[in-house]
Amino acid sequence: MRIIGIDPGIAIVGFGIIEKQGSRLIPIQYGCLRTKAHTPEPLRLKQIYEALTSILEKYQPEVMAIEKIFFNRNVTTAFSVGQARGVMVLAAEQAAMPVYEYTPLQMKQAVVGYGQAEKRQVQEMVKLLLHLKEAPKPDDTADALGIAITHAHSSHIEIRMNGE
Amino acid sequence: MRIIGIDPGIAIVGFGIIEKQGSRLIPIQYGCLRTKAHTPEPLRLKQIYEALTSILEKYQPEVMAIEKIFFNRNVTTAFSVGQARGVMVLAAEQAAMPVYEYTPLQMKQAVVGYGQAEKRQVQEMVKLLLHLKEAPKPDDTADALGIAITHAHSSHIEIRMNGE
Repeated sequence: MRIIGIDPGIAIVGFGIIEKQGSRLIPIQYGCLRTKAHTPEPLRLKQIYEALTSILEKYQPEVMAIEKIFFNRNVTTAFSVGQARGVMVLAAEQAAMPVYEYTPLQMKQAVVGYGQAEKRQVQEMVKLLLHLKEAPKPDDTADALGIAITHAHSSHIEIRMNGE
Repeated sequence: MRIIGIDPGIAIVGFGIIEKQGSRLIPIQYGCLRTKAHTPEPLRLKQIYEALTSILEKYQPEVMAIEKIFFNRNVTTAFSVGQARGVMVLAAEQAAMPVYEYTPLQMKQAVVGYGQAEKRQVQEMVKLLLHLKEAPKPDDTADALGIAITHAHSSHIEIRMNGE
């Protein structure tokens, strides 16, 4: 099973594609999409949508696992990220891919074994689990791979993104 | 100038297309898009995106005016609406339409002359201003027409949707 993990954002979107073969996890491609500040938001949304759509076409993941956002910090930022998340979920739906959601806590629990883990610990564990030579950077890319790993390790039954 | 006004939502999206000819405002088409509860959210986003894209193709508005959302009430609903708003703004950008934002307060001020106006007053004023036989229903449709009227009456310079 091929999984794309997404750490959504408007300025930076982390993505990480892994292949699950039995108990093995093989990294396929990972990195981040960036949009420039001071670019009109509609254009940034289109850039993210188009870049992600072409990644989905190129690497053909079967499922998308995306970070679930909480609104405990900056509400304006969260709303902007929400809009970006909408176009990413649209890209998945158009590619007929099911979308699963995981909280940062679930991801850290699955990857590090500790829900309050730091960014650095996530990067190190992702490196170990995927047998990478270096820890993936920036955080957004590591988190996206972490979300993909979380999906690979979960049972998927109850967490598919629902309407209400 | 042809304007489409949007009252964004995930369950219901109001839209209203008007043509501004000098000081006259002519209603072209208006109504609302609905998605069903219990439908997976990615599918709802795709349904909204596709329906709106075909409305834009059919009626060829030159600009989109969309309600600006505030997060003072239900944060979960607001986030869901934010995702939906993302795919609507994407549809506008793909049609090369500039997107303008207005708050509910600005809309009520422009349409009723009073920022704290009630839904019913917006419906009645939209009816009067567009010479409709009946007040547009539901609220979402009236609000969308109100947003389009607000844009028709504004100078447009400072409120184009920006990156940051």
